[in-house]
Amino acid sequence: MKNFITTQNWSRSELQDILDFAIKLKNKPHQPLLKDKSIAMLFFNPSLRTKTSFEVGINELSGTAVILQPGKDAWPIEFGENIVMDGESEEHVKEVAQVLSSYCDCIAIRAFPKFVDWDHDRTDSVIKGFAKYSSVPVVNMETIEHPCQELAHILTLQEHYGDLTGKDYLLTWTYHPKPLNTAVANSSLLIASKFGMNVSLLCPSEDYLLDDRYIEAARENCALGGTSFDISYDIDTAYSNAEIVYAKSWGCLSFYGNTDKQIASNNQYKHFIVDEAKMSLTKNAVFSHCLPLRRNVKATDAVMDADYCLAVKEAANRKHVQKSILSKIL
Amino acid sequence: MKNFITTQNWSRSELQDILDFAIKLKNKPHQPLLKDKSIAMLFFNPSLRTKTSFEVGINELSGTAVILQPGKDAWPIEFGENIVMDGESEEHVKEVAQVLSSYCDCIAIRAFPKFVDWDHDRTDSVIKGFAKYSSVPVVNMETIEHPCQELAHILTLQEHYGDLTGKDYLLTWTYHPKPLNTAVANSSLLIASKFGMNVSLLCPSEDYLLDDRYIEAARENCALGGTSFDISYDIDTAYSNAEIVYAKSWGCLSFYGNTDKQIASNNQYKHFIVDEAKMSLTKNAVFSHCLPLRRNVKATDAVMDADYCLAVKEAANRKHVQKSILSKIL
Amino acid sequence: MKNFITTQNWSRSELQDILDFAIKLKNKPHQPLLKDKSIAMLFFNPSLRTKTSFEVGINELSGTAVILQPGKDAWPIEFGENIVMDGESEEHVKEVAQVLSSYCDCIAIRAFPKFVDWDHDRTDSVIKGFAKYSSVPVVNMETIEHPCQELAHILTLQEHYGDLTGKDYLLTWTYHPKPLNTAVANSSLLIASKFGMNVSLLCPSEDYLLDDRYIEAARENCALGGTSFDISYDIDTAYSNAEIVYAKSWGCLSFYGNTDKQIASNNQYKHFIVDEAKMSLTKNAVFSHCLPLRRNVKATDAVMDADYCLAVKEAANRKHVQKSILSKIL
Repeated sequence: MKNFITTQNWSRSELQDILDFAIKLKNKPHQPLLKDKSIAMLFFNPSLRTKTSFEVGINELSGTAVILQPGKDAWPIEFGENIVMDGESEEHVKEVAQVLSSYCDCIAIRAFPKFVDWDHDRTDSVIKGFAKYSSVPVVNMETIEHPCQELAHILTLQEHYGDLTGKDYLLTWTYHPKPLNTAVANSSLLIASKFGMNVSLLCPSEDYLLDDRYIEAARENCALGGTSFDISYDIDTAYSNAEIVYAKSWGCLSFYGNTDKQIASNNQYKHFIVDEAKMSLTKNAVFSHCLPLRRNVKATDAVMDADYCLAVKEAANRKHVQKSILSKIL
Repeated sequence: MKNFITTQNWSRSELQDILDFAIKLKNKPHQPLLKDKSIAMLFFNPSLRTKTSFEVGINELSGTAVILQPGKDAWPIEFGENIVMDGESEEHVKEVAQVLSSYCDCIAIRAFPKFVDWDHDRTDSVIKGFAKYSSVPVVNMETIEHPCQELAHILTLQEHYGDLTGKDYLLTWTYHPKPLNTAVANSSLLIASKFGMNVSLLCPSEDYLLDDRYIEAARENCALGGTSFDISYDIDTAYSNAEIVYAKSWGCLSFYGNTDKQIASNNQYKHFIVDEAKMSLTKNAVFSHCLPLRRNVKATDAVMDADYCLAVKEAANRKHVQKSILSKIL
Repeated sequence: MKNFITTQNWSRSELQDILDFAIKLKNKPHQPLLKDKSIAMLFFNPSLRTKTSFEVGINELSGTAVILQPGKDAWPIEFGENIVMDGESEEHVKEVAQVLSSYCDCIAIRAFPKFVDWDHDRTDSVIKGFAKYSSVPVVNMETIEHPCQELAHILTLQEHYGDLTGKDYLLTWTYHPKPLNTAVANSSLLIASKFGMNVSLLCPSEDYLLDDRYIEAARENCALGGTSFDISYDIDTAYSNAEIVYAKSWGCLSFYGNTDKQIASNNQYKHFIVDEAKMSLTKNAVFSHCLPLRRNVKATDAVMDADYCLAVKEAANRKHVQKSILSKIL
């Protein structure tokens, strides 16, 4: 049994197998690979693309998807061990995971961090709790990483560029009025470095550096692949070498839990918006983003509507990679 | 590719084809006409009949229905063009429509007006935005018109009367404590006039006249069909000729956006309730309503429980006409 | 046509047939017994196990499940007769039941009591309203009884013990910080007495006695089966004979509607928690609970993690008995 929680547990060639099979599914979408299989999809947070692409994809493979929203239309769940459960939670993940394992063949989970205490949130306790107690595979639909997005991202880049080895990849922070999840940014570092690219991380300041775990993982992946990893605070320099620009906004970890301070900090850096001027500095780079994207806040209309914008294609590829992942692990 | 957004874009014979096929589906409900097809159903507003009839109907045709609730379990969406998206919306319809088009074969939308500014609401910007950017057919599950209800309404009347040409049709405003959507009333005028009936609109006062667009469309349809169209403010006169009484409550456009004033206005006209006394003035008319219906507010128990009440039959026909529509456009 | 609303309308041998067929479905889960059948599932209250087990189970039998949440994503419903509907409800159960009956082959309902007035709540007006007006079978997914849970409970006990006749069965109240539904407790009395066991009910005080209807039904079932029924307020005595301990918390009917008083009352009885000391008094009893369960509040970690705890197995059996029920009545 294999979970799909982080791409770090999968080798580049295993991931490439998933991507290769995703292409086959893209060409022949309807195959009964999940016949008689049910997947419980737990959404602790809202979703458009993830819900639709999983639900349609599972049906295209003749499987059954069940949507659950714990704390909304299901009971709130406790994840701590040896707790006297006299708070809000009505049941423990131990029972939930075991019971769902008895009904279904897979448990997929979307659980954003709580944005209060990064030391806690970085333990990824929700999906880890399910993984510990489930007897069926667990799939990450975005927690503090977003591995399904990673594979859709890489598939889209491979469709454009072919082999990505040695490409110059820029992950840039971009402006958003609210402090967002770091998951896609963490994932961007993990996957770009794993697939042999030279990776640059552009932040407004040190306050916006991602968790050491992901910086170090990217550094190691790059070292293993013989590519470079660097961090920049200068927009012009960072964009100037890029062949791929991937943008994401995230709340700074320095002020994590202090939303007002995070917002005030973000508001200093509205000029990080991805626009044509910045894109013109690159080596004819393609641009992408995981969506949802606020137009003219994170990227301009001109960038979003340009031929080099792959964001919609990346979103479309979510369905294919996810079907491939489920076919591999179920 | 053909959208199903308004019956005005469809000829009477095209619509009759849909109705004729609906009867065939009613007699043989399970046919694999939507095999390997997925329909994304976006609900910006609540639904019982629409959700159930579409979801069951799609399954009866071997298709897949995915339910999405933007702003609730999906992200809020922006519909304006060239907007700096620094408000509540997290993504633009342009991306949403393109991405959903990549996952699904059809996008169905329920989006009531906002009840603030009729000049804006009458542009029907939500479904128009999806229609503009989708590469798959878009179906109206009620916005400022309700074309699926129209077809269920006509099918039910045809089952009762056969050919409807020349029938005397009354659309009457009826009381409700809240100012409601004009969609079904607009739709009633459009479809009754298109199917060759003499159409009367009964309102409490000029404040309750429907938008000119629909009055004029009905007038033109009637002129084309050689039938009459008139507006009345007198209950007895209006009911006296009717062979069909269709009731609906709607908020008056004169005070649109001013809920208190609309409610105060409605409260003057509680006597517009459909009761046995009014029905006894008609030419043995049948009665119908789109549901939901507040008993003893919009219509009395006696009317709702009478043999001449077709409301439940009309609701039941929703499933059949919708299956027929989807079979035609997909 | 047969509803499944209370096990009291079913004979022990009819129920045993359902259980026997559940075992067959457990061994061969995928059978097209609900092909071309649709089940509308109405959730007036949250659910994890019920929703998932029904939805997966229906799909395993090739049927279609439609999830509805009246008052959330569907309109609020009126259940009274001859009411002037000028309150919150937008439609009457008479129309809802008839319309859903036209779309679907079965209506399943979860509707907890309102916890205001037990004299009203004990009439079970929601599901009774649906049963009155539906033309398709109605299934109880928990109202003031929980018959699906009953069958899962019995199946699990039969898997452990074989024939249950003459077994000593204890239903014990257990602590919870909030006043909960009596449904599972009522159901426990009904089914344990029907299946030939000696039934003891352990309460903290007379305030916690269940409704006479259920006490009397259990007494009669026991009398018919030649077994004993007794009520105890003494923990040690009650546990000392038990071969089966079933725990449930419920709000005391004496203070029904007065949540503060119920909570204050509950708080006196935290020592009713099921722990190893109490379990050691029994005749090697098995323990079970319907879930959700607050660990270390209703039962200790040690009890929940013991081999004699059947709670997860009972939850898993929900799917099998429900599939069996639907197969029998559709």
